[in-house]
Amino acid sequence: MAVNSPLPVAAELKPVNGFELGFAEAGIKKPNRKDLLVMTLAEGATVAGVFTTNRFCAAPVQVSKANLAAVAAGGKPIRALVVNTGNANAATGEPGLANARATCDEAARLLGIDAQQVLPFSTGVILEQLPVQKVIAGLPAAIANLKADNWFNAAEAIMTTDTQPKAASLTTHIGGHEVTMTGISKGAGMIKPNMATMLGYLAIDAKVAQPVLDELVRYAADRSFNAITIDGDTSTNDSFIVAATGTGGLAVDSLDHPDYEALRDAVTGISRHLAQQIIRDGEGATKFMTISVEQGRDMAECRKVAYAIAHSPLVKTAFFASDPNLGRILAAIGYAGIDDLDTSKLDLYLDDVLVARAGGRNPDYREEDGQRVMKNAEIVVRVLLGRGGAEATVWTCDLSHDYVSINADYRS
Amino acid sequence: MAVNSPLPVAAELKPVNGFELGFAEAGIKKPNRKDLLVMTLAEGATVAGVFTTNRFCAAPVQVSKANLAAVAAGGKPIRALVVNTGNANAATGEPGLANARATCDEAARLLGIDAQQVLPFSTGVILEQLPVQKVIAGLPAAIANLKADNWFNAAEAIMTTDTQPKAASLTTHIGGHEVTMTGISKGAGMIKPNMATMLGYLAIDAKVAQPVLDELVRYAADRSFNAITIDGDTSTNDSFIVAATGTGGLAVDSLDHPDYEALRDAVTGISRHLAQQIIRDGEGATKFMTISVEQGRDMAECRKVAYAIAHSPLVKTAFFASDPNLGRILAAIGYAGIDDLDTSKLDLYLDDVLVARAGGRNPDYREEDGQRVMKNAEIVVRVLLGRGGAEATVWTCDLSHDYVSINADYRS
Repeated sequence: MAVNSPLPVAAELKPVNGFELGFAEAGIKKPNRKDLLVMTLAEGATVAGVFTTNRFCAAPVQVSKANLAAVAAGGKPIRALVVNTGNANAATGEPGLANARATCDEAARLLGIDAQQVLPFSTGVILEQLPVQKVIAGLPAAIANLKADNWFNAAEAIMTTDTQPKAASLTTHIGGHEVTMTGISKGAGMIKPNMATMLGYLAIDAKVAQPVLDELVRYAADRSFNAITIDGDTSTNDSFIVAATGTGGLAVDSLDHPDYEALRDAVTGISRHLAQQIIRDGEGATKFMTISVEQGRDMAECRKVAYAIAHSPLVKTAFFASDPNLGRILAAIGYAGIDDLDTSKLDLYLDDVLVARAGGRNPDYREEDGQRVMKNAEIVVRVLLGRGGAEATVWTCDLSHDYVSINADYRS
Repeated sequence: MAVNSPLPVAAELKPVNGFELGFAEAGIKKPNRKDLLVMTLAEGATVAGVFTTNRFCAAPVQVSKANLAAVAAGGKPIRALVVNTGNANAATGEPGLANARATCDEAARLLGIDAQQVLPFSTGVILEQLPVQKVIAGLPAAIANLKADNWFNAAEAIMTTDTQPKAASLTTHIGGHEVTMTGISKGAGMIKPNMATMLGYLAIDAKVAQPVLDELVRYAADRSFNAITIDGDTSTNDSFIVAATGTGGLAVDSLDHPDYEALRDAVTGISRHLAQQIIRDGEGATKFMTISVEQGRDMAECRKVAYAIAHSPLVKTAFFASDPNLGRILAAIGYAGIDDLDTSKLDLYLDDVLVARAGGRNPDYREEDGQRVMKNAEIVVRVLLGRGGAEATVWTCDLSHDYVSINADYRS
């Protein structure tokens, strides 16, 4: 089940010059299923990424971080990305690292580049060794069908418990140049800030200097992939990668460049769109909730409150039931960890309905008004803390019977 | 559904001299249901409590804390406790406080004591005003049936979403004296450290000086009610109260008293028993899980890891499914927030089965061994961090379809 999330249309996913994608059915998890994706970048492209903060960071994440660090230290640029589903290659120790490196070795050999120029990614079950021979056996087929207009197939190839592929494309004008950007994402349960079993890949045809792209990917991630949560679990494999192929007319060589902000905002916008698709396809999700916390002292405390609400199983089941049991939201705000919170200054809105005022029930609030909003598939929870001028927004979904079913049966 | 939790037997709940209990059907939530409880204490009794840290601390909690503070400041001792179910009187502002005080006023008038000598408690729906006239109308009936052997009825009277009453009783010998202690508890969902919609009341017939009892209740709570969690939500109303009637032979007047430790350990043991009954009756629970984290640098980081595991919806659904998807436990350890955790020193056991060794899959681990343990109704998850000598234990339950059903339908 997915909340108001139309399938991306293959024809609307615009190719990005200098970026090609090829897939294969490597039989890693099940037969007859796309489970391997290779992406290649033209010479001169720059690549930046953000990765999970989980201490059980998976083997491919360790290798990808090391290979990006090698570029920063003056090594050859990244020229290819390889993604497999079906196995996360996480908590697999030294054999896991060897398997991730073997994947890079073989992809590099087939593409005629160095192994350090390949970034590997995996998603799927944890604690089981990657069937690396299947990955290696699948690479030639994936490389044979590399094409610039393979985005829709690529979106399908990286799905795990996703019920639908996730992709977005945008053409805009910045500084007099046409800029095209297209991306894909995956992830359903286990999505949370600092990322989860979540993968996102975005290609843009602008030329973006490495330090600028490093800053840009962090900025966009904080306002997109790091601001979504389904169940609070952060995975071992999450990665969000932005590649700038440099094939278009726009070139941004510093953060002071007059076109930087426009490019940053466009990238943030499409990243948010890719991230929100994950929530709309959240495991068992029937509602899409925007949690907006305003009037905090700083962004950090606003995020604390937003996540306390977004992670509360009691709040999430109440939304599933369309039950305006709004006291559960107040309780979550109360335990969010703001020790000096003055609840008598706090207001709570559900869409446009003022539910609680000055920390208590709004005398004018009528149950039927709350009920009307709760029946919607998209709901905004708005908290005014009355302490300052900072704000933060988090997106999440409800907790349904289907969430339990999907996660209880995932490996069966 | 409850996990291996036999009903307490009324005849085995021993009266505690100097402590009486009376109940009524006050019609606060539904007709024909015990929903009001009055407990009275003999002259000379001492009372101490720990309360929720939720910033939306309910009106009765505010009044109870103020009345205990008045005793500490030299006021008259506490002589009565009043508990209603059906309405939490939380996030109800000034009218809520007035209603909590009106409850004390009327109980005091009927019992011939001062209003400050009464502690009020409420549990139920948040954000709705307490129907205080029903509480007041029910008090005479509750007071009329005050009896020392009403513990089982009292346990039933404080139930909300509980499927069964919770109570425990113990007679032991300390320092040559027979000591009797009997307690009741309630709470199902919304249980977490620093407490939840959880109420616990324990009476002991020893004479315990106020400062000793204050320390004792904190010590016992940290190792019982503050070490259980069902869904991570902390409520507005949680309270754990210990009353020492002073009617027995044992008297402990300081923390240096030779019998203090034995008394402390007995109280901690029965408190743990009362707390664990809440987990066994957790909303929709089918499994009872003990999460034991050892070899940490300090107790705080051990608790962080234990709670990350205990709160992970992915871990909890895997236990519900009896699926040894143990990577989910490693992932939860990885995001628990220990920034310098060296995962290569970490071992993970499921009961006696060594699942992960040195941060990776134990080469000798066989899926059928994990499967065997996961089918049990009681499971111990044991994490060895390899960093030090501290440890912490937390008790929790799985996440089932019934959890969603119960919490989606709670108010209907």
